[in-house]
Parts: sequence; C-alpha cells; structure tokens
Amino acid sequence: MRFPLLVAALIAAPLAAQLPPPKPDDAPSPAEIVAKAPKTDWHAIDARDLVVMDLAPDAKGHPRRVVIQLIPAPFSQGWVGNIRKLAAAHWWDGLAVVRVQDNYVTQWGDPDGEDKAKAKKLPEGLVVVPQSEYQIRFDRFEEDLIRREPKVKKLDLTKIYLDPYGRSLFLFGWPYSIKSPIPDVPVNQTLAPVHCYGMVGVGRDMPPNTGTGAELYTVIGQAPRQLDRNIALVGRIIEGMEFMSSLPRGHGELGFYDLAKGDERVPILSVRLAAEVPNLPAYEYLSTESASFARYADARANRRDPFYIRPAGGAEVCNVPVPVRRAK
Amino acid sequence: MRFPLLVAALIAAPLAAQLPPPKPDDAPSPAEIVAKAPKTDWHAIDARDLVVMDLAPDAKGHPRRVVIQLIPAPFSQGWVGNIRKLAAAHWWDGLAVVRVQDNYVTQWGDPDGEDKAKAKKLPEGLVVVPQSEYQIRFDRFEEDLIRREPKVKKLDLTKIYLDPYGRSLFLFGWPYSIKSPIPDVPVNQTLAPVHCYGMVGVGRDMPPNTGTGAELYTVIGQAPRQLDRNIALVGRIIEGMEFMSSLPRGHGELGFYDLAKGDERVPILSVRLAAEVPNLPAYEYLSTESASFARYADARANRRDPFYIRPAGGAEVCNVPVPVRRAK
Repeated sequence: MRFPLLVAALIAAPLAAQLPPPKPDDAPSPAEIVAKAPKTDWHAIDARDLVVMDLAPDAKGHPRRVVIQLIPAPFSQGWVGNIRKLAAAHWWDGLAVVRVQDNYVTQWGDPDGEDKAKAKKLPEGLVVVPQSEYQIRFDRFEEDLIRREPKVKKLDLTKIYLDPYGRSLFLFGWPYSIKSPIPDVPVNQTLAPVHCYGMVGVGRDMPPNTGTGAELYTVIGQAPRQLDRNIALVGRIIEGMEFMSSLPRGHGELGFYDLAKGDERVPILSVRLAAEVPNLPAYEYLSTESASFARYADARANRRDPFYIRPAGGAEVCNVPVPVRRAK
Repeated sequence: MRFPLLVAALIAAPLAAQLPPPKPDDAPSPAEIVAKAPKTDWHAIDARDLVVMDLAPDAKGHPRRVVIQLIPAPFSQGWVGNIRKLAAAHWWDGLAVVRVQDNYVTQWGDPDGEDKAKAKKLPEGLVVVPQSEYQIRFDRFEEDLIRREPKVKKLDLTKIYLDPYGRSLFLFGWPYSIKSPIPDVPVNQTLAPVHCYGMVGVGRDMPPNTGTGAELYTVIGQAPRQLDRNIALVGRIIEGMEFMSSLPRGHGELGFYDLAKGDERVPILSVRLAAEVPNLPAYEYLSTESASFARYADARANRRDPFYIRPAGGAEVCNVPVPVRRAK
C-alpha cells in the first residue's frame, strides 16, 4: 500500500487540479451541481440503517420527525448494535430531549439516567464497548471495505483534507479523520468518524465509561472536533435536523434543561427502527466516490458562482456536507 | 517587519510548546481557565460599540434581547457607520427576522426590502462601501492599531492557526484571516474578519452590490468560511445568541420565511445604540493577548481535563471562541 500524498503539502481543495476551470459566467453553485448529478451518482441508503425518532409536536401541533442513519461497519458497531436493541425495545418512548447547549449539542435519553434508583431499566443484552473502538486501524477498515464492496480493490487516499485536526477524507458517504501515531509517518494509521454538524454520538460518563448508546447527542454548531476519538459516533441525522437545532437552549449547567429555571424537556413520542415505521421514504446520498461529488466538493472550496468574488481556495471537511435526499 | 513563521509548517496549537504540560490529574478545562483568569486579563468592551436588538417575546412571553458588538476600526467601518445611523433612526423597529437557514444563517431586516415600491425608506446619509473594504492591507491595519494602542509597537504574528482557508489569528479580541496574493510569500498581505459562529455580516445582492447594513445576518452553524472576503463582517453577538440560533427554520428558498407555507416572521421590537438602552450591563472580553487566553486556546486544542482521553492536537480558529462575559 502506498501513501503518495501523506507527507505532501496542504491539500485543501484536492480535486481542483483535476477539473477544467468552468467559465465564470456559467459556474454552477454546489447546490446546482448536486441537483444535476446523474441518478447513477446517487447511492441508496439501506433502510435497515435508519432509526426514526418522533418528538412531541411543536407548539403549533406540527409533527417533528427526525431520521437517523446509523454508521456502517466497521465503525462503532458495538454501540450501533445497542441502539438497534434499544429502538427495538421501544426504550426511548416517553423519554425526552434533556439538553440543548448552544453551538454544541442537543442530547436525548433518560432524564433520570444519572439516578440509579429512578433510572429506566435498560433492555437485556447491551454490550459494553471498549474505548479502543473509538477509532479503527486503517488496514482493518480497508480489508472490511474490500470485503463489502467487491468493486473496491484499494482505497484512494489522494483526496485528503488537511486541517488543524489532522487529515480527513470522505469514504463511501461519510467523513473520517486519519491519524498516525507519529505525524507524517503513515504507519499504524487509524480512522475515526468526524464530529460534523448533524452527526450523532453516544453520551458517556468519565472514562473508561464509553456509554451504552441510550444517551445520544447531535452536533448543532461549529464542529466540536475535540470530541473525535474521545467518544463514539454512531450516525447522522439525514432529515429533521432543524427540529433538533432549533429547540430552546437549556438554562442548567452544560445546557441541560433545568425545570427549576422554567425549562421544559421535549418529550420523545417514539424511536423506531425503520422496519416498524409505515410509509417511510427511501433516502439516497451522493456517492463520495462519484465525479459529481468531486465537482461539488471543489465548488464548496472554490465558489465561482456569481454571488462570490473571491473563492476561498479550500474547505474544511465539515463544510462539505454529504448531500442526502429522498429518493425520487 | 519580519514574518518568521509564515512559511513554517502547520502550527495548529501554536502555544503548546511555550507552556509546561499540566499534570493529567489536575488539568483544567478551557472553561476553568477562563473562570480563573485574573481581572487584569479581561478588557472592557466599549459600550459605544454595542447595539441592542429586542425581538418580540417568545411564545411563553419571555423577552429575547440580543446584544451585538460592532467590529472595531479599521474593519468594515463604512457599514458600521451605516448601522449606527440605522439604529439611531430606529429604522429596524417593526421589521423582522426574515430568514433562518439551518446550519447557515439567521437574517433580519425589511421583509419588503426586495420590492422597491414597498421597501421601507432608508435614512439619509448611508454610504456605499466598495468591495475593496472586505479586506484590509496588513500594513494599514498594523499602523492603525499602533495608533490606537500605544503599548503596541509591532504585531506578534507567531500565533497563527493554519487551516484549509489559509492562516488565521486573534488580534485584540477578534479572529482574522491573513492572506497573501502569492501563497507563502508574505508580501501585500491582507486581513479580513472570520465567519465564525455568532459573527454578524451584511446581507447584499449580487456583486458589485455590497449591502448597506440594513439587512444583517448571523452565523448559526458550521463556520461558512467561503463567505470570508466576499461579504462584510460588522460584529458579533455577545449575548442572546441562543435566541437567534433557536428560531424555527424557514420553509422558503434559502430558508426565508414563507408565509404561504405557514411560516411566521419574528418581529423586531427595537434596535438601539447602547446609549439609548437603560441599565445595559457592562461587558468584557478575555484579552487575546493575555496569558490566560494563551492557556485557554491551548486547552481548546489539547483537552487534558479528565473527560478526554486523546487530545486533538489542534483547533480550528472558530473552535476557539473569544470568551465574553458581563463585567463583575
């Protein structure tokens, strides 16, 4: 395995050099590129990886449905398995959003989870996942992927984003960071998912506790990349994110809702695996290995559409959200 | 003027090397460092730079006050002057928040601003600011700062954050990006403010339009750094940000509120210069030139407090928000 670019200079917009510069007067925006991507560049999201959370309706009675896509193997599968069990047991039904900290996270689970006497009993069979699962050896990831994706013979590691958190890249629909124990020496590298806006993670107590998956959060502000490799990421919200991000902020410590200060928790009506949800739409994502995604990522980094006068010349990995839509 | 580090390698956590590593078992969190910063490390925010926006109370009748600090000279002063005139004229009173686009911006101004026949008349004397003011020559900035801050003889440019958008740094309380026309050649450099969470910018039409300042927005998600140097940044929200970020998202194009789709705009009761606001608290910020800020920034990049097991080793400039508080 070769790593031609791992010690190369900053590659903020890795694909720019491979693309002909469009004419300034007809340069498409990232959204236009996505809208025109051929159907073959979109990949179906497996409905078996979807979890649907219905919050109580808002003050006007509008439903608030949140659709979560669980992260694929080999990442975080211990926690993902727990989440499947919790959803199958309808464990979250009647629990609540307990914390909304501005520019950080919205968190949901058992309001009494910290109180052993009052905490809701967890279903049988949840596993305890070791901290070592926060990241995965790169060679293990590659082997696993080649097994699952027969067309893949070798991963293309040339499309690297370099930022203060290290190197990151998109692989089969998800953003990952890649790190070596010794910087710039591509030996014993590990991958971990990235804490971008809308990603879903597992709340936990102090280490070595790793959380069960019963307490979850999603990122509602600037990517808190300090959490990468310190906590398990298990998925992302692909629809209904606006219901999580627009909730009233909590007035307790760390943004927890404090009933004594007049806060009200947001009730969870139900959390279900997709198989139990009637009429759930099908979803698809723009393949991160497609030419359309390459054009989209390049346009995010170098806006040439008419509103812009100076392209940035780069983009942070979390400023290139993977397009997801309902399948047509 | 010398630029010793401008061509140096990635310096994500620029201060780490200057600080003794704290013992793991008593390492303070960034918040603890800020809480313990001596009073002398806090600088007063000039009340003349504050603008106070009162939104209509929320559904429970709670007031929603938003305090904006205008950016200091020499940045964006044409637009800042316009904003002072608009506030003095009470121009925004009775207008509204018109757009909330998830993971992007909340925008406020005249709902009829696009319709010449119905648009609210602007006060006399607003200036038209050229695009060239989106950034400032570095030497002009340094001269200006030395004139205003007699203790400063020369700017310290060693504390640089390098990210996909180029280089950025904190100067006297604000985050700026610094760019050269030719990368790595520190000649004819320019500075521009950075689109971090909570920063306030000037909505505009297609270039060469630069906006008047009557239409403003604030960042409510991942820093949209593609807007840097393409649009004027005029300040930041230092209190009440949660009222802007938690508003319902709009269902029209680009997140504009669409009344036909059941959206309701959020009314602005008043926007006032601080001199017209009774009993406004005094505010202060943690000096970005202080030892406390250096420790805080280092701790943001390298979390050693007990919750964390692997320090990130770096932080993006927008993941190091400048601490602001009410003065005690």
